Amino acid sequence: MTVETKGKELNQYVQDSRKSFEQHLKELVDIPTVSADPAHRQDMDKCAARAAELLKSFGASAEVIQTKGNPVVVGEFHRSKDVPTVMIYNHIDVQPADASEWKSPPFDMKVDGDKYLGRGSTDDKGPALTVLYGAKYAFDNGVPINIKFCWELEEEIGSPNFEQFLKDNKEKLHTDYIAVSDTVWISRDRPAIGYGLRGLLGVIVKLKTGTKDVHSGLVGGLARNPIGELAKLISRCYDATTGEVKIPGFYDDVNAVSENEGKDFLASGFTVDAFKKAHELIKLRTEDNLEGATRIWAKPTFEVHGITGGYSGPGVKTIVPFQAEAKLSMRLVPSQDPEKVFKLFEDFVKKELPEAEIIREGALFPYMGERTGPEAEAAVKAMKEAFGKEPAFVREGGSIGAILSMQKVLGKSSLFLGLSLPEHGYHAINENYDWQQASGGMKMFVSYFKALSELKR
Amino acid sequence: MTVETKGKELNQYVQDSRKSFEQHLKELVDIPTVSADPAHRQDMDKCAARAAELLKSFGASAEVIQTKGNPVVVGEFHRSKDVPTVMIYNHIDVQPADASEWKSPPFDMKVDGDKYLGRGSTDDKGPALTVLYGAKYAFDNGVPINIKFCWELEEEIGSPNFEQFLKDNKEKLHTDYIAVSDTVWISRDRPAIGYGLRGLLGVIVKLKTGTKDVHSGLVGGLARNPIGELAKLISRCYDATTGEVKIPGFYDDVNAVSENEGKDFLASGFTVDAFKKAHELIKLRTEDNLEGATRIWAKPTFEVHGITGGYSGPGVKTIVPFQAEAKLSMRLVPSQDPEKVFKLFEDFVKKELPEAEIIREGALFPYMGERTGPEAEAAVKAMKEAFGKEPAFVREGGSIGAILSMQKVLGKSSLFLGLSLPEHGYHAINENYDWQQASGGMKMFVSYFKALSELKR
Repeated sequence: MTVETKGKELNQYVQDSRKSFEQHLKELVDIPTVSADPAHRQDMDKCAARAAELLKSFGASAEVIQTKGNPVVVGEFHRSKDVPTVMIYNHIDVQPADASEWKSPPFDMKVDGDKYLGRGSTDDKGPALTVLYGAKYAFDNGVPINIKFCWELEEEIGSPNFEQFLKDNKEKLHTDYIAVSDTVWISRDRPAIGYGLRGLLGVIVKLKTGTKDVHSGLVGGLARNPIGELAKLISRCYDATTGEVKIPGFYDDVNAVSENEGKDFLASGFTVDAFKKAHELIKLRTEDNLEGATRIWAKPTFEVHGITGGYSGPGVKTIVPFQAEAKLSMRLVPSQDPEKVFKLFEDFVKKELPEAEIIREGALFPYMGERTGPEAEAAVKAMKEAFGKEPAFVREGGSIGAILSMQKVLGKSSLFLGLSLPEHGYHAINENYDWQQASGGMKMFVSYFKALSELKR
Repeated sequence: MTVETKGKELNQYVQDSRKSFEQHLKELVDIPTVSADPAHRQDMDKCAARAAELLKSFGASAEVIQTKGNPVVVGEFHRSKDVPTVMIYNHIDVQPADASEWKSPPFDMKVDGDKYLGRGSTDDKGPALTVLYGAKYAFDNGVPINIKFCWELEEEIGSPNFEQFLKDNKEKLHTDYIAVSDTVWISRDRPAIGYGLRGLLGVIVKLKTGTKDVHSGLVGGLARNPIGELAKLISRCYDATTGEVKIPGFYDDVNAVSENEGKDFLASGFTVDAFKKAHELIKLRTEDNLEGATRIWAKPTFEVHGITGGYSGPGVKTIVPFQAEAKLSMRLVPSQDPEKVFKLFEDFVKKELPEAEIIREGALFPYMGERTGPEAEAAVKAMKEAFGKEPAFVREGGSIGAILSMQKVLGKSSLFLGLSLPEHGYHAINENYDWQQASGGMKMFVSYFKALSELKR
């Protein structure tokens, strides 16, 4: 079921598309593509096949490409070799959902007025489908651009096979521009375009001082305490009150946030109060809005995720633990290099606690796209036309492996033209998407494709 | 089955007692009096009844006294109101035992040459029975002293009902002297008499900064990290490398170890090397023997038993935890007061981390008996006569609630005339006792009762 596009006013097209959009979104949401659960492997194939059919029914070419893990769906509205190409990345796998916590079944999408309730509705099946509606209108109405689709099915598990997929299909995926539609605005009142990601360096530090827990009455005072020593090490690495990292050289490659960037951070609608409410936090390290936004988007961190070892039951059991493990990570910002930071960390730990064993976990580079220049201007124009407001340029505090892989293999940076809102319950129960963002998003992508097609190559 | 005592040489009596001792010890060990496991409640009653019968068959009076928990067995060889009274404390409940880890069934005592293998053989059924054999000989041979027995069945679970039992039976338990036979020598080559215990103050510090774990990409840098803040607090409380406690005033009431005490600590045979092997520790805070002994017996500690909160599975999960809990305790030495130390700790935490919640767990006073004076001399004489070597005066690093209760309710301090050896596997698998310690112990208690009876009251 598609909607007539040719010669139709964009507003009319979008209005006429509503029923069809809702029907197709339900088709996708109702397939439980939970990538974290191997039991859903067949649903992955089913959803990939359905997505490819959908692309074809809209007039695009489409194919399902196998990887060592879940497949990737690629498609294209191809105009000509002589016009520019843009690729939009989305993903159609979803987070797990515990049905008992939801007010309606997570994999049986319900339309509730303007709201679409179901797992994956906003992350990221809804935005993927929104792009497709916009792309069809642009293509059918002659916008001189080739539009490629890349729908991954392993995003929620860290894209373990995506980089190899890109390498294996590099020619097919050749593009001039990349946009990613998988991010969240800060506030419904203000469109947001993302251009930066933090990197990540995970490490485990282990200390073993014996072979079994020993009674502290027998050995306390003479025996070493590995949890105590790791606590000391952590406190030498950073001041948990302020968040300041004390590892020598850690901040050497960190760039200050420019005045313009800072203005945009605030323009996004970010406030410490809203942040606190959204994440249900009691008190933060600062109450200042600009400093708050800068801390999550543009400053590196040192974080303790857990300390294992010793006694963890109720009350106190007076043992001296024989081993302990600190689970740590550092979020990194442009232009910090995970390799270099790991070396700084390792040198510091070797000096402070030579017996500790350091285990390196995953590392991801930070990412910095362009917030100025013609491509960014095209995105600004599109957001403004569709949503009636100047968008704010923001960064993401997390790390998205797929974006780094696309930059590495395809040689293009990405802008993040997300459509989700804080109230959509990203990764939470009762996830939803809404017609306001879907309809606005369709128009935004039409404008974006037009604006891109007009750029000088 | 008892052995003729009257007019018999002590050595001959002890020699003749061996078969009988082994048979009675097996009767007691084969009843699995695991106080930590409520499923063994009936075994407690069974063992108490059997112990009372045993006391009676030896010619002592005996009764089983009920408490809110497990019963206590009391008995007496009563001579006259005109002679002094000594009470010996033992316990006949035992630690749990996992049969699959033992080389022979823990509750089916095996005699292997001089060794008696079974749970409770050395802790503390063997020593209890040893005292009984010595007491019978002393009594039957006219030593002018009343000898009382007090065999608890809740020692391994912290003596929760013992103080009330003492209060309820204060008249019956009236005594001039108390000895406790439930401690471990440092080395088989050197008898040890204990005279001091460390106290204990358990505390839990909780910090809550949100209502759920949050993704560190979204909030890291702005959100507080309760594990990091507790690690910092712990590092402010003590230097885990040296063990030095940094809470202001903490050491104010700590007395230095005298030169004589220090000499005795070393004379006990304590070495850092043996300690390391016994507890399977890799490296200690010092390699010096005197400092090592002082650290476990005569210095207070700050200990971290565990930190809960956050992620504890394999690898690293990049969440910012919303709450954390540090399980802590301080071992205290004479004349530190748990109340006063708690106040110092509380004041310090309130200043360093005002949002933290402090939960007080158990507290036990430190204990200091007399290592000089007539009673101590009687013990020295007895140990020397029986084992051929001058005993060393040592302290215990742990806390024994029963001893504090006896001092409080009965008004008498205790000396610890233990008979167990490090190689007996106290609280460990393949626990054992041996005829050398049993036979020496019988002689030692005979000498001890004689020496006590000769003291001026």
